[in-house]
Amino acid sequence: MKTGVEPAVILLVEDNPDHTELMMRVLTDHDIPNHIIHVTDGEAALDYLWRRAQFADPATSPQPHVVLLDLKLPRLSGLEVLRAIKTSVEMRHIPVVVVTTSSAEQDLRLAYERHANSYLVKPVDFQQFTQMLQDVGNYWLGWNRQPGDPLLTA
Amino acid sequence: MKTGVEPAVILLVEDNPDHTELMMRVLTDHDIPNHIIHVTDGEAALDYLWRRAQFADPATSPQPHVVLLDLKLPRLSGLEVLRAIKTSVEMRHIPVVVVTTSSAEQDLRLAYERHANSYLVKPVDFQQFTQMLQDVGNYWLGWNRQPGDPLLTA
Repeated sequence: MKTGVEPAVILLVEDNPDHTELMMRVLTDHDIPNHIIHVTDGEAALDYLWRRAQFADPATSPQPHVVLLDLKLPRLSGLEVLRAIKTSVEMRHIPVVVVTTSSAEQDLRLAYERHANSYLVKPVDFQQFTQMLQDVGNYWLGWNRQPGDPLLTA
Repeated sequence: MKTGVEPAVILLVEDNPDHTELMMRVLTDHDIPNHIIHVTDGEAALDYLWRRAQFADPATSPQPHVVLLDLKLPRLSGLEVLRAIKTSVEMRHIPVVVVTTSSAEQDLRLAYERHANSYLVKPVDFQQFTQMLQDVGNYWLGWNRQPGDPLLTA
């Protein structure tokens, strides 16, 4: 498990207020310390990652350990965000976990074609959704490793 | 959580007998029913996925829900296996989780460049390794969704 001093950074790209509230709450209460940056549209997600506009300062815009990405988003869709990240040599190593209400075969196919790291369907049941988010935290913040991870270079 | 009738299929590509034994035991005992296919080199992994040689019968060679892939393998390395899977339109949607003793920055970079879905470093501590495998099962067999998943088309 990650035991670094710096909290893990999560970029949450989600425009549904109810889902946002639940996701923020469960992840903020997670055993593994983390810091959540929340944006509500696809353009803002790319602005954050590429440090544009209000996200230009690297000190306040650290690269995330994981992106939790809704598909239906204003301004730029989740699939477009995914394509931008995964075709970029600088960003490709950031895990992108699609978290959506859609279980449409076409969305699944397109997400994996564009190299989503994982695809999760939001459970309708509140307790299941909570458990899923706990497991997301355990897995992506606790176990998954990335280039530049301070634990690895220590 | 997945509640389908068919057990989830795991392709384990691992040549270390001790690691294999632990991984098989923890995953076989997992709450989520699963069936593990174990191969010990990279060529056999590709033979299984592309149904060649002794794996030609689709009935006994179902497509896996997840590939757990060691990097240092006889005959064909894990990075070569990864490249073959992720450059194939037919195979790309299969999650490939690298599970290795290597935390070398270069291995991490190459694995993500070739679109590994996730990269895990085998913990030296037995209990940690066991816990990691439990969480791997929860996440990839329980929550992650793929095209053609029977739950989604039901």
